[in-house]
Amino acid sequence: MQSQDLTVVHDGTALTGRLIWDETRTGRRPGVLVIHEATGLGEHAIERAERIVREFGYVAYAMDEFGETPADMDAILGWIGKLLGDPAELHGRLAAALRGLAEQPMVDPDRLAAVGHCFGGTSAIELAGTGADLKAVVGFHAGLQGTGSTDAGAIRGKLLICNGAQDPFVTPEILQAFSNEMIAGGVDWQMNLYGRARHSFTNRDADALGSEAYGYDADADRRSWEAMRALFLDVLG
Amino acid sequence: MQSQDLTVVHDGTALTGRLIWDETRTGRRPGVLVIHEATGLGEHAIERAERIVREFGYVAYAMDEFGETPADMDAILGWIGKLLGDPAELHGRLAAALRGLAEQPMVDPDRLAAVGHCFGGTSAIELAGTGADLKAVVGFHAGLQGTGSTDAGAIRGKLLICNGAQDPFVTPEILQAFSNEMIAGGVDWQMNLYGRARHSFTNRDADALGSEAYGYDADADRRSWEAMRALFLDVLG
Repeated sequence: MQSQDLTVVHDGTALTGRLIWDETRTGRRPGVLVIHEATGLGEHAIERAERIVREFGYVAYAMDEFGETPADMDAILGWIGKLLGDPAELHGRLAAALRGLAEQPMVDPDRLAAVGHCFGGTSAIELAGTGADLKAVVGFHAGLQGTGSTDAGAIRGKLLICNGAQDPFVTPEILQAFSNEMIAGGVDWQMNLYGRARHSFTNRDADALGSEAYGYDADADRRSWEAMRALFLDVLG
Repeated sequence: MQSQDLTVVHDGTALTGRLIWDETRTGRRPGVLVIHEATGLGEHAIERAERIVREFGYVAYAMDEFGETPADMDAILGWIGKLLGDPAELHGRLAAALRGLAEQPMVDPDRLAAVGHCFGGTSAIELAGTGADLKAVVGFHAGLQGTGSTDAGAIRGKLLICNGAQDPFVTPEILQAFSNEMIAGGVDWQMNLYGRARHSFTNRDADALGSEAYGYDADADRRSWEAMRALFLDVLG
């Protein structure tokens, strides 16, 4: 596997993420935009991007959504509030990153997907809702309340949400509102709820947060990865 | 593939289902109890049982839960009301069928599963809730309101529910109550919701019912079958 920094710019803000690919493959292959949790770009998103390259042979881009690593929970909540409150800024950053990926000569721009975690999942759904040409969108422990400025009817690809049934950030009311929105938009969507899982169930560092809201769950991690694999094989090849 | 009628008796009632197996295999293998929709034992359940034998090599028993084919919707609702209102009768019929399957010399009684559709899904969950030794329980467009007489804490196997997000028989309130019950019981459970799917989405005859509530959905049918396959490979081998 090879990797290099890839910087994209939106409205004067430089966002440097990690582009990863398998140098033993040739020809254009699917490209997957990987969007980190609200804690910022770090090991978790990069490792998952690497795994996508290793297991599927695609090109992955672990983008940086914030341009910095939030120092603490206040900073994290600040970023979420700032980007949800400014859809043009959020969508602009995401579109710049997707374009940066799609322009790579080894990427097939007709086979793009976005995979997001936590607020990155929210972001992936937002990007799809702008009408971006994404064949698949996967959200892991994804926040399901977006900017309210997009139209589910604009979603072109297949959507898979993998969430914990015990994720306190996604209440039954939020689930229901999201479901109604997707149904109204005629989206091809699936929601897998993992019964024992909480927020951040794919992140081995989640337990260290010491909160009941967060927790790594090996079963849900494995099952959700396999659900993503099935969708990728179906739509990206 | 071979098949033969298999009659089990509960409290004087004879229930004749179809036992199906691959005669080219030897040794004890997993046994799957297949429970039909509320329309009674017919082609749909038998075809799915055959497919389980063909694809996984297990032994399948498409049981008869009613002992008759309900003549019309009144008769269907009558059976659902009768069995939900008499848990001992429901559980006794299911236990008799599971025992009939487990006693087959080609079945490994330590690797049993139950797969149910519609009210058969409700029934499979009920059977698990009696503490039956089922390694996996799968419900397709399953009703999620049972007799209220079982304890989720008694469920020993892994539970997978594959339902349509547009199934009008499973309201958000019912989903939430079911989720709370499974969480309280500490069950290893998953719920896959298929966004475009309605009730009976695995049944090609569903559209002929001419009701908005029912509909075949090829995507949900395929995806839910693959989800069952992943669970079976995980727990039955």
